[in-house]
Amino acid sequence: MDSKTLKGRMERCRRLMAERGFDVLLLTKPANMFYMTGDGRLCAFTMITGGGEVALGVPKTDVEDVANTAHYSHLTGFDDEVGMIHAIGHYFQEFGIEKGTVGLEYTYLTQSMFSMLTHPHAKPEDVAPRDCTAILSELRIIKDAEEIERIGQAARVADAGMEAAVRHVRPGVTESRIAAEAEYAMRQEGADGFWLSYISSGERTNIAHGLPTQRTIREGDLVMIDIHPIVNGYSADMCRTICAGRPTPEQEDAFSLYLRAQQKAIGMARAGMGVAELEQALHGVLRDAGQAEHIFGPPIHGVGIEFEESPLPPGHAFFHGEKAPEPLKANTVIAVGNCGLYTGPWGVRVEDTVVVTGDGPTVLTTYPRQLRQEA
Amino acid sequence: MDSKTLKGRMERCRRLMAERGFDVLLLTKPANMFYMTGDGRLCAFTMITGGGEVALGVPKTDVEDVANTAHYSHLTGFDDEVGMIHAIGHYFQEFGIEKGTVGLEYTYLTQSMFSMLTHPHAKPEDVAPRDCTAILSELRIIKDAEEIERIGQAARVADAGMEAAVRHVRPGVTESRIAAEAEYAMRQEGADGFWLSYISSGERTNIAHGLPTQRTIREGDLVMIDIHPIVNGYSADMCRTICAGRPTPEQEDAFSLYLRAQQKAIGMARAGMGVAELEQALHGVLRDAGQAEHIFGPPIHGVGIEFEESPLPPGHAFFHGEKAPEPLKANTVIAVGNCGLYTGPWGVRVEDTVVVTGDGPTVLTTYPRQLRQEA
Repeated sequence: MDSKTLKGRMERCRRLMAERGFDVLLLTKPANMFYMTGDGRLCAFTMITGGGEVALGVPKTDVEDVANTAHYSHLTGFDDEVGMIHAIGHYFQEFGIEKGTVGLEYTYLTQSMFSMLTHPHAKPEDVAPRDCTAILSELRIIKDAEEIERIGQAARVADAGMEAAVRHVRPGVTESRIAAEAEYAMRQEGADGFWLSYISSGERTNIAHGLPTQRTIREGDLVMIDIHPIVNGYSADMCRTICAGRPTPEQEDAFSLYLRAQQKAIGMARAGMGVAELEQALHGVLRDAGQAEHIFGPPIHGVGIEFEESPLPPGHAFFHGEKAPEPLKANTVIAVGNCGLYTGPWGVRVEDTVVVTGDGPTVLTTYPRQLRQEA
Repeated sequence: MDSKTLKGRMERCRRLMAERGFDVLLLTKPANMFYMTGDGRLCAFTMITGGGEVALGVPKTDVEDVANTAHYSHLTGFDDEVGMIHAIGHYFQEFGIEKGTVGLEYTYLTQSMFSMLTHPHAKPEDVAPRDCTAILSELRIIKDAEEIERIGQAARVADAGMEAAVRHVRPGVTESRIAAEAEYAMRQEGADGFWLSYISSGERTNIAHGLPTQRTIREGDLVMIDIHPIVNGYSADMCRTICAGRPTPEQEDAFSLYLRAQQKAIGMARAGMGVAELEQALHGVLRDAGQAEHIFGPPIHGVGIEFEESPLPPGHAFFHGEKAPEPLKANTVIAVGNCGLYTGPWGVRVEDTVVVTGDGPTVLTTYPRQLRQEA
């Protein structure tokens, strides 16, 4: 991201910090650090003060590398965890922050990491910790043109991954092999990596988080393929369900029903629409068809640097320490179709990444939505 | 794992719970649940009581699937996070646990998840939470024959992944492509998945956590390849550094020095040896050669269900809320070579997975340790 964009983010961040009474943010979540400074790496920290300082701490090996990618006012390298704590303590001192409120990422920090960052050698006693997740979510939820371009690139890479995966669906092939084909194709098309690939088949399509196994696909199995490439720091989220052979009429009906529900929700996605209303629209189609018992999972979530980020559905938002989402704003990017229709012997699901605009939806993931491998 | 093995683990677990004053454990970390019940999945919980109950909660879609893989006395499915909290509260009631101590995984739970699991609808007010990480680490640190067999399988898969990666190292190829080749080969050889692959090249071999990018390998670049397949629930950890062309004398010297240090530490690995002594042995060879300034990272950690687990090096142990490790016991599995020699323009590193026995080390990862692609 260019320095003007990052400067704009810092200004918006400082405005929110002042509004909500934060004197300093102490970030360690790579996605948040990446958004604010242009660099998000493991085992690092970013301190953002109300006064305008941006201090980075990284492993001492990484100082030169981070200097090439991040925007900051102060930079230090440390040897180990003890050095990291002391570097944080040093910046509190240098910035003259002796009391007030430090924002920490309660949705990211484990209890142990929280203890470390609030250790007496890190944080002055009179500086109180408070969750700053909502500030970062609020900043990240509306995407600029460059971000939407990158999510679009990720969507094109997801399309290529799905094409490769579907091409290899046939009896005798393992779930892990389908994952291998999708992931290999996504890296070839420009992915730097990916979030977990969920690939399940047969009766395993009925479970909520079907990570790939050595199970072998059998004739007539459904195969659920849910992939999330990372391209230039941004993600896409797409799921398709494919039959290895000839689907049964029940499978055809369930798939058509789910697709109708998903497409209805996508059609309604525009600025001003509530996330709960979209959820209701999608679930409503399934319920009206007598499938209420077979629905599992909240159908909508945001997509951006993370494949699952704000706006989070109300249940997940609680789980992740966030508030229930406000009505959608233009240039929010969401995935529609995160819930499944789980019948017992098998499940179906179709998910796409969608940009919300003032006029309606722009669907970024385009791989054909069909149960049969060949139309 | 067979039911006799799992029963033995439960008995050892209950003994430690009694010794340390835990009335019940409430686990949500997949690796720990997998070790204790035979099944570890996302968005699930396992409660283990001192009285002998083992209660599982999973998404309602997963009840039948988990019944086929897990060992337990009670099982329930839930609809969402609120249902999960109520299921936990219900089990506290059913087991008659109104006061005492509940063990939670402080090294795994975020602040938000911690708040959820200690919500008044989940946990009785007079039941106090306390970190139970040390109990699970103590149970998992010594591997049985079946576990060592599985880690050995993972090591063979890592060898195959490394072979594929090294074969593709040449000018013009991206770091992400090297990751693609390693990951594809590992899935073909039986991996269900893998932890993050670290692939860096050129000046990026000097950074501590070099995740793959679109950087193109240039003639004479070093390429650092660190991979971690998961096979039957168990991991291996291996790193090699390869030159894309003809290494300089300085690179040859640094590589030979690092390999000598790593092999010295491996040679000393046996029951009764301290982890800190192994660290000193490895670092000592580097320091004696005048390279003290170029060392970064603790060189030793455990390997098992996770590619990085107990025994953790003292610094990491603190970071992860664990105690400094005791002297090694027989049938502990460790990775040796987790630190790098980072010279500035480039770094080198060699890492292997090793079983500690009473007699000495058994090295499980066997891919040739050489800087040149062809010997």
